[in-house]
Amino acid sequence: MAKSGSNLTAVLDGANDLRMIDAPIPEPKYGEVQLKLLNCGICGTDVHIWKHGGFGGMPLTDRIVMGHESSSVITKVGEGVTHLKVGDRVATEPGGPCFQCKKCKAGRYNLCPVMQVIIPKYCGNLTRYAIHGADLCFKLPDNISDEEGAIIEPLAVTVYACKRANIGMGDTVLICGSGSIGLLCLVTVLARGATTVLVTDIADEKLKVAKQAGATYTLNVRGMSPKEAAAAIEDVLGGPADVSMECTGVPSCVSTAIYATTRGGNVTMVGMGDLVQEVPLGTAAMKEVDIRGILRYCHDDFSTAVSLVASGKVNVKPLITHRFPLEKTLEALQTTASGVAVKVMVRCAEN
Amino acid sequence: MAKSGSNLTAVLDGANDLRMIDAPIPEPKYGEVQLKLLNCGICGTDVHIWKHGGFGGMPLTDRIVMGHESSSVITKVGEGVTHLKVGDRVATEPGGPCFQCKKCKAGRYNLCPVMQVIIPKYCGNLTRYAIHGADLCFKLPDNISDEEGAIIEPLAVTVYACKRANIGMGDTVLICGSGSIGLLCLVTVLARGATTVLVTDIADEKLKVAKQAGATYTLNVRGMSPKEAAAAIEDVLGGPADVSMECTGVPSCVSTAIYATTRGGNVTMVGMGDLVQEVPLGTAAMKEVDIRGILRYCHDDFSTAVSLVASGKVNVKPLITHRFPLEKTLEALQTTASGVAVKVMVRCAEN
Amino acid sequence: MAKSGSNLTAVLDGANDLRMIDAPIPEPKYGEVQLKLLNCGICGTDVHIWKHGGFGGMPLTDRIVMGHESSSVITKVGEGVTHLKVGDRVATEPGGPCFQCKKCKAGRYNLCPVMQVIIPKYCGNLTRYAIHGADLCFKLPDNISDEEGAIIEPLAVTVYACKRANIGMGDTVLICGSGSIGLLCLVTVLARGATTVLVTDIADEKLKVAKQAGATYTLNVRGMSPKEAAAAIEDVLGGPADVSMECTGVPSCVSTAIYATTRGGNVTMVGMGDLVQEVPLGTAAMKEVDIRGILRYCHDDFSTAVSLVASGKVNVKPLITHRFPLEKTLEALQTTASGVAVKVMVRCAEN
Amino acid sequence: MAKSGSNLTAVLDGANDLRMIDAPIPEPKYGEVQLKLLNCGICGTDVHIWKHGGFGGMPLTDRIVMGHESSSVITKVGEGVTHLKVGDRVATEPGGPCFQCKKCKAGRYNLCPVMQVIIPKYCGNLTRYAIHGADLCFKLPDNISDEEGAIIEPLAVTVYACKRANIGMGDTVLICGSGSIGLLCLVTVLARGATTVLVTDIADEKLKVAKQAGATYTLNVRGMSPKEAAAAIEDVLGGPADVSMECTGVPSCVSTAIYATTRGGNVTMVGMGDLVQEVPLGTAAMKEVDIRGILRYCHDDFSTAVSLVASGKVNVKPLITHRFPLEKTLEALQTTASGVAVKVMVRCAEN
Repeated sequence: MAKSGSNLTAVLDGANDLRMIDAPIPEPKYGEVQLKLLNCGICGTDVHIWKHGGFGGMPLTDRIVMGHESSSVITKVGEGVTHLKVGDRVATEPGGPCFQCKKCKAGRYNLCPVMQVIIPKYCGNLTRYAIHGADLCFKLPDNISDEEGAIIEPLAVTVYACKRANIGMGDTVLICGSGSIGLLCLVTVLARGATTVLVTDIADEKLKVAKQAGATYTLNVRGMSPKEAAAAIEDVLGGPADVSMECTGVPSCVSTAIYATTRGGNVTMVGMGDLVQEVPLGTAAMKEVDIRGILRYCHDDFSTAVSLVASGKVNVKPLITHRFPLEKTLEALQTTASGVAVKVMVRCAEN
Repeated sequence: MAKSGSNLTAVLDGANDLRMIDAPIPEPKYGEVQLKLLNCGICGTDVHIWKHGGFGGMPLTDRIVMGHESSSVITKVGEGVTHLKVGDRVATEPGGPCFQCKKCKAGRYNLCPVMQVIIPKYCGNLTRYAIHGADLCFKLPDNISDEEGAIIEPLAVTVYACKRANIGMGDTVLICGSGSIGLLCLVTVLARGATTVLVTDIADEKLKVAKQAGATYTLNVRGMSPKEAAAAIEDVLGGPADVSMECTGVPSCVSTAIYATTRGGNVTMVGMGDLVQEVPLGTAAMKEVDIRGILRYCHDDFSTAVSLVASGKVNVKPLITHRFPLEKTLEALQTTASGVAVKVMVRCAEN
Repeated sequence: MAKSGSNLTAVLDGANDLRMIDAPIPEPKYGEVQLKLLNCGICGTDVHIWKHGGFGGMPLTDRIVMGHESSSVITKVGEGVTHLKVGDRVATEPGGPCFQCKKCKAGRYNLCPVMQVIIPKYCGNLTRYAIHGADLCFKLPDNISDEEGAIIEPLAVTVYACKRANIGMGDTVLICGSGSIGLLCLVTVLARGATTVLVTDIADEKLKVAKQAGATYTLNVRGMSPKEAAAAIEDVLGGPADVSMECTGVPSCVSTAIYATTRGGNVTMVGMGDLVQEVPLGTAAMKEVDIRGILRYCHDDFSTAVSLVASGKVNVKPLITHRFPLEKTLEALQTTASGVAVKVMVRCAEN
Repeated sequence: MAKSGSNLTAVLDGANDLRMIDAPIPEPKYGEVQLKLLNCGICGTDVHIWKHGGFGGMPLTDRIVMGHESSSVITKVGEGVTHLKVGDRVATEPGGPCFQCKKCKAGRYNLCPVMQVIIPKYCGNLTRYAIHGADLCFKLPDNISDEEGAIIEPLAVTVYACKRANIGMGDTVLICGSGSIGLLCLVTVLARGATTVLVTDIADEKLKVAKQAGATYTLNVRGMSPKEAAAAIEDVLGGPADVSMECTGVPSCVSTAIYATTRGGNVTMVGMGDLVQEVPLGTAAMKEVDIRGILRYCHDDFSTAVSLVASGKVNVKPLITHRFPLEKTLEALQTTASGVAVKVMVRCAEN
């Protein structure tokens, strides 16, 4: 096992100020475990925080450890932990809600006020060793690889998003955006029984990936106005979508989704965009197209994500297009930022 | 009974072109009844159609009969009608969904495509006599007056809105706008068990009516920005609202409602505003504050509205502030347009 | 096309009194179509009605035409029908709700009082020609065979049952009974994203079919008490099921399901058993295991069933184990009654 | 403040073995408060545990402190408690879920396995002093008396039951049993907007209380079979109930409720009866009348109950019919057991 002090860690000290430091190896407290990180994926939020030194209107106030999409092996078990043992491989749910507030007690712990900060507790996984709450660790069966294990976190996001979107069997679904979240939405809606899925993007090569991942139709909407895009979508589908999942955060795509969704359906905003947006909200209201956002995941979304991968119902492997060792975290961020990758995977463990 | 041909009727031929004509008295077909109109209220939509010659992006293409908030007495019963008889007083649900389409079969008949026109079937009640679908007539018990009967329709709107808003017992509710729909929302949320209700407006005299009708708090938000208004609302309530019902259609009020609603709550848009609006949609998404519109009513909202008035759970009488005979329909519209009235009531029957 | 009068039809005049008669060919009225039947499956309810001359406490009062799981080709189109044409192959939804009553308007038309009779309107498909409501016909794409088309009806039952059971992605599901409805439940819960499914029965050969159709586990519960069976189920699953679907109608299986379901889950009664049953209802109440029955299907369950088969998400072909021509309807019923078959299919069309 | 050791406490050592002892005064740990008990009500479960030495199939294994419906004043505040201070009057939620398990995280903490014992943590309030989890204390405003404060707990039960029963505005509700829980159901369904409520019992004097508390109708069903009682209920209501709340635990009442509830409604079992019962479950299934049990309360049911009393929406005072000092706890239990009382209230504080 690693010596104390030799814990290579990617930290951010401000906008564009990523540093690789040698941090101490943390020890687990009561109810916690010590993780040896295996893999950690990079997501758009990581890039945003790195480039802007903050997120969602919240600026960084302290040094943070980057990374939250990871798989690990347990190296130490704290007091009071009974369901995990050294050597277990796990996916880890970031966060750490209070379970004392009204939101937590109502079963919506993702909205817990103590987690409404840029980096909640138990984040920071672009490192060799970390600690984590034992009840937020989800065992990985042998047929899930380390890399797949690091995609459980973003898959939990789309598992949750599909609940919010209330995707039903036989539904026709529009997915705006063929990035990693759009593609995870795609495989998740298919696993829920959606039978027709149209994915839009403005890059043909991204749409090709969507088609390979199971999209019924793809459509390049480059240069179209929202109403034109909606008309083109309805033309392909033979009518409007039952539900739309907006994965770009771009207002014109939100608008397209509102126009292209059937009366009584919903637009679920999975992508995060500007705080203030100009959209056809009056049109949505008259059509009773509900607009719903999502924040992280909740309940048993992590264990559901593990089950989906373990059972073979979703295949996340084709999403991983680029790989870097922990030492090259900066390149991993740059590659994600460049837009050429679907999912960039960092190997945290020394080989 | 009235002679054929002597059916005084308020028709609209275009923007600002209201005419009182002498129409024929219609005869009921299979499944229909003939109504002698008693009272008909005027609503904001009537004023909008009258002033602009259309609504919701749909221009008027034909002459229409105005009015849809009415009480009547049945004067003839068509073939196949068994549950109604001559002399029954009724409130009437406008519309007439197809019951063949997917929306109707899914129990959301208010979204039926055949009703997505300015004036659906069985509207046009600013008249002496009209016909109506028997299954869309709801008997009024003796303890509901003719005028109260004419408020069943807008009350059905707020009954439906409260279902969409999912108002629960003990909820803290923000209602934006103290007009007739805002006030009907107020009495309806109280009947559903909301225990704290704050009503906003920009006119003190309207807020006084809200206070009399049971509002826990009222707040004049004139001159405040949405963030200022939200801060003032939270200050009064000791925190954000569980649910907000937006009854003005004004984007700054929608924005206020988004800011003033707790994470995981919803903003239900009862008021109809511009089709395109600039609002903090990204903020709503991050807070998981859902945005939901409403269109008319559905299911058993009319019979629920009748029960609420008959049981004394809601008192709609104080809302009626102005009265006109059918002959003075134009003045009734002008009075509603002027903003001085809460609810303007037209007497359709000759006395 | 067939001459009037040469319409071979299987009718029932009372318990065990099935007759093959030569009926007239019916003509479609307004909103109806004329069907040339292709295939018709036999179900347990058919057998029950044939053997007992009634169902669910309702005795037969008139001659009825048997059969309601069918595929057809349209041979005539009545007035007012626009979305169907001669030559279209369709699956047909039996029934014919009133769309005037409270249940229909609330979107639960399967509970419409006018359909609470042994044989509702638009049933009776063990025949060469029948008429049907056009809005209750669902087009079959070319990649669905005539026989698959005749399984759309029972598949719609399990589509609806899964909605009532609220099956979620990643759920662990117990299915009691490996007959045709149990197996259709199995493929439907898998299509909805259930990841672990245990099927029980008392016949190993039936459980073998379940395993081939995708069951994660099967268990022969012959000779076990409900508590023993529940313990054995939990042993296999590593804990209780999230949801149980009871497809046998046998009280001991209902009891097993109640014991084997997790707190807060539900037991959905898909199989129809005795009207009065002795079961651990107090245990269910304390565990908040809800007990829900199902009656037929509703909303868009038929079109969902068509989509599921057309998209390849469910494969119903392996269920068909026996085939008979229309002339041998009695043998088809006897074979179903004998218990040796999974699904018995009758060919209605002359070859 | 009381000296250590002088803590008069009602303990149970086995069936019919209630003792008044002098226990030590407990000290609050981290996150806890010390309560000086004000009032504690007696409920049917208390009587059952006292008489049978156990409950719900679980025998008593240790000495327990009786009582769980109480109001208190805070006398000490443990570390980490910020929202409460000495002198605050509170109602207290018994229990103490783990907030680590799947049920807790899913927002159904009342089903948490660690609470599935006869006496969960933070129970035992027939005493002078107790400790309690601070997050399970709910401040009482000045306009709620000590005795009303002790009825918050059973009111939280019916607040939760009404959620499970999904009582809607305008609903017609059948309540079986006019004991304290039946009466609390009555005032709660009225606060949720039910407009017609029929209460049944077999004692006229209890039905008189129901009528005074707001029941639209009452019906004495003594001597009637379930089908006779259901017919009589439908006769009074002019049709079946939308929802039934069964508050007796008697199988014949469950049966009556199933027969008397409309298709698609539900029977919510608030009363606790035998574990195994013979009821028309097949009838319920065919009618899609769901059967739902309830266990305690969840989410914000306690704060909702406080709001309902504070706002005047429900009046619980008339339920209190008998009063005893703590020293006479045995008489309080005997009086409850005798059936003459609605709610028996014990004064825990020395006057």
